[in-house]
Amino acid sequence: MAATPSSERALAEFVAIPSVSSDPSRTADLRRAADWVASRLAFAKPRVVETAGHPVVLGELRAAREAPTILVYGHYDVQPAGDEAGWETPPFVARVRDGRLYARGASDDKGPVVVALETARRFVEYGSLPVNVRFLIEGEEEIGSPSLPAFLAAHRDELAADLVVSADGAMWRASEPSIPVAAKGLLALDIVVTGPASDLHSGRHGGAVQNPNHALAAIVAGLHDRNGAVAVPRFYDDVVPVELGDVPFDEDAYRRETGAPALHGEPGYSTLERLWTRPTLEVNELRGGGAFTVIPREARAYVTCRLVPDQDPERVLAAIERHVAAPAGVEVRVEVRPGAVPAYALDVDHPAVRAAQDALRSVYPDREPLLVRIGGTLPAAAMFEQVLGLKTLLFSFSTADENLHAPNEFFRLARLHEGVAAWSELWRRLGATSLYG
Amino acid sequence: MAATPSSERALAEFVAIPSVSSDPSRTADLRRAADWVASRLAFAKPRVVETAGHPVVLGELRAAREAPTILVYGHYDVQPAGDEAGWETPPFVARVRDGRLYARGASDDKGPVVVALETARRFVEYGSLPVNVRFLIEGEEEIGSPSLPAFLAAHRDELAADLVVSADGAMWRASEPSIPVAAKGLLALDIVVTGPASDLHSGRHGGAVQNPNHALAAIVAGLHDRNGAVAVPRFYDDVVPVELGDVPFDEDAYRRETGAPALHGEPGYSTLERLWTRPTLEVNELRGGGAFTVIPREARAYVTCRLVPDQDPERVLAAIERHVAAPAGVEVRVEVRPGAVPAYALDVDHPAVRAAQDALRSVYPDREPLLVRIGGTLPAAAMFEQVLGLKTLLFSFSTADENLHAPNEFFRLARLHEGVAAWSELWRRLGATSLYG
Repeated sequence: MAATPSSERALAEFVAIPSVSSDPSRTADLRRAADWVASRLAFAKPRVVETAGHPVVLGELRAAREAPTILVYGHYDVQPAGDEAGWETPPFVARVRDGRLYARGASDDKGPVVVALETARRFVEYGSLPVNVRFLIEGEEEIGSPSLPAFLAAHRDELAADLVVSADGAMWRASEPSIPVAAKGLLALDIVVTGPASDLHSGRHGGAVQNPNHALAAIVAGLHDRNGAVAVPRFYDDVVPVELGDVPFDEDAYRRETGAPALHGEPGYSTLERLWTRPTLEVNELRGGGAFTVIPREARAYVTCRLVPDQDPERVLAAIERHVAAPAGVEVRVEVRPGAVPAYALDVDHPAVRAAQDALRSVYPDREPLLVRIGGTLPAAAMFEQVLGLKTLLFSFSTADENLHAPNEFFRLARLHEGVAAWSELWRRLGATSLYG
Repeated sequence: MAATPSSERALAEFVAIPSVSSDPSRTADLRRAADWVASRLAFAKPRVVETAGHPVVLGELRAAREAPTILVYGHYDVQPAGDEAGWETPPFVARVRDGRLYARGASDDKGPVVVALETARRFVEYGSLPVNVRFLIEGEEEIGSPSLPAFLAAHRDELAADLVVSADGAMWRASEPSIPVAAKGLLALDIVVTGPASDLHSGRHGGAVQNPNHALAAIVAGLHDRNGAVAVPRFYDDVVPVELGDVPFDEDAYRRETGAPALHGEPGYSTLERLWTRPTLEVNELRGGGAFTVIPREARAYVTCRLVPDQDPERVLAAIERHVAAPAGVEVRVEVRPGAVPAYALDVDHPAVRAAQDALRSVYPDREPLLVRIGGTLPAAAMFEQVLGLKTLLFSFSTADENLHAPNEFFRLARLHEGVAAWSELWRRLGATSLYG
């Protein structure tokens, strides 16, 4: 029995379940997806465990001999299909074109989860398991994993392990095997400017009161200097310099990919350093007033900061609060959003990183694996560290270009084979490695 | 037969017709309102004339002897009711409380139109008409009078007159009889900043491209100095200084009315000067991005300038276009909206102003009428000047505090009597005045 058809069929079944965690009408589909994962883990004492939100699937396999224990993490929930008109084929039907399987969730995270399940199945059927394996496949990753911290705390003993191996967290590029060794943290907040008690007609009252839109613009303009550096004093205080080493990066190709007229960012750093090693402050939304000729009573900016290792979200928030001052004639407040996450980092000399490099070299012998960083945030990795004290190795076989969170999401089918081969080799290497020290 | 019950009943009938010009489902109600006006003008050869939009009601009365001709302007259309939950009584049912008739359109502009119709009826029934009177009551004022310029041009001969007397344009305050001698013009435009070709994930791409929200904030922040003056070079170039004279104004009461923490505006001018004599630039909307953690591909500001006499909308637009420069990494364009209107002004020594002052003194003998200015825009007055070469006297008996465009709009019933008395006296004075200059 060949692995390929089986795992491809499995992925086709899995993506056909529209397990959209943000859609309350899909609760039964989330449960179906959890049950489907459990059915594929029939050899691993699967349990579908309720949480305050969508269930978590647990499983457990014992190694043939004394061995480290890994906790395999992934998620069975997916993003909404979004604009269905943007899809070339229906989002919840697997369609294969040019070696790619198209469907919502194919890349994030159902394809990589199938890789992990298939790896386990092959060891159980054909070989001798080199590590103890626990599985934790959750259903709320796309909504920020709200139930996960409490779940981890409540199941601490069952989840005891030496390392988390995550099937989530896409590889940087399809052509370059890579291992992420850091992901940025997240601090989200709103800057809210209030002025008059209600919207005022801007003809009758214009020029006599401060317009919250003008005040907000002045505040937002003061968050960066004209060159693109964050202008909030002490924002960069705790940032530790990082040497990226030799990572090939074509700035012009990247500019074309973004479609921006020019690249732009903090002076003194390359684009790759800005993306990977420097904290950012981005205004995701400006909103004040509307189509009417009024001075609005309120204007708001939604701001997210991506933090790097050693930055404390609380200290960054305090720096922003100190910096954001009300212009004359309005009041300003900073409202932090829940769920701030510090940056995540794995030491490049951690034995799990070396094992992962070796595993990738065995599958891609002609390409030296890159150590890369992720500009986005992986809340689960921070939760595993905070609640269980476990480091997480990100070992996903999806790729960042596979239209995650967009129409026409796809997964490269060759990655099913490559992924199972690499995961198998990783488990063998980890079984021969001390993860304790 | 007393005028009061008749005109009050008439207003109650008129406001019961939900003639919301912006609502396509109300077309028949607009027609009903036009027919209602025509029926009240039965003595004046009424005609309901089709336009590209809602019809115009025309009428004509000849004076007993050689006399000037006035063109009475008003509108039978109204704003939408808006939030019906905000209304204490149904918006399209006249309800009288404390000497006020509550209903959508009671103040803007059905009460003042009833005053004009009732004035004509009384002259026809009881007296000798001192002026020739033409009526033009339109149905598109609340949507910017889009059909009016073409209508005026097509009916130039039928509309020949010496002066427009407008029943639209509210008095400043209930306690102080006043005559507006100026209204501000309007220039509306959008500032559009474009950056990347599509929304970019702000984790994956933050810090490497210019965020259109940041660029827009910098541009908007550059439109005013920190003290509140417009910072666009040449913006104030053509502004002619105006002496307001002695107009009582309580700044603290005004601040409380707006609910703003403090008043704020162009240094060197009083609040009343800022409201009445200084041009303004207000950002009515800021909009970029949304609830997702993206760098949006576009951010926009909707801007309206209120212009004062001698400012040319084209020149002000050019000054703004020169001033709005693209920060690094994005592109910026200024899109003007159609319908720019220059300011309107009537010389304080115009014979119509003197006649209006005398008419107000006859009705309010203990209060000297104020000459006031309007911060808002009266496109119709500009159209009468541009197309027919006619000046407009604003002689409305509604008041700016009557919840125009808001829930619980009302009209002070005493103003029906006072208005008919003042309009009658105005017509007598105009009949004895040379309006030819």
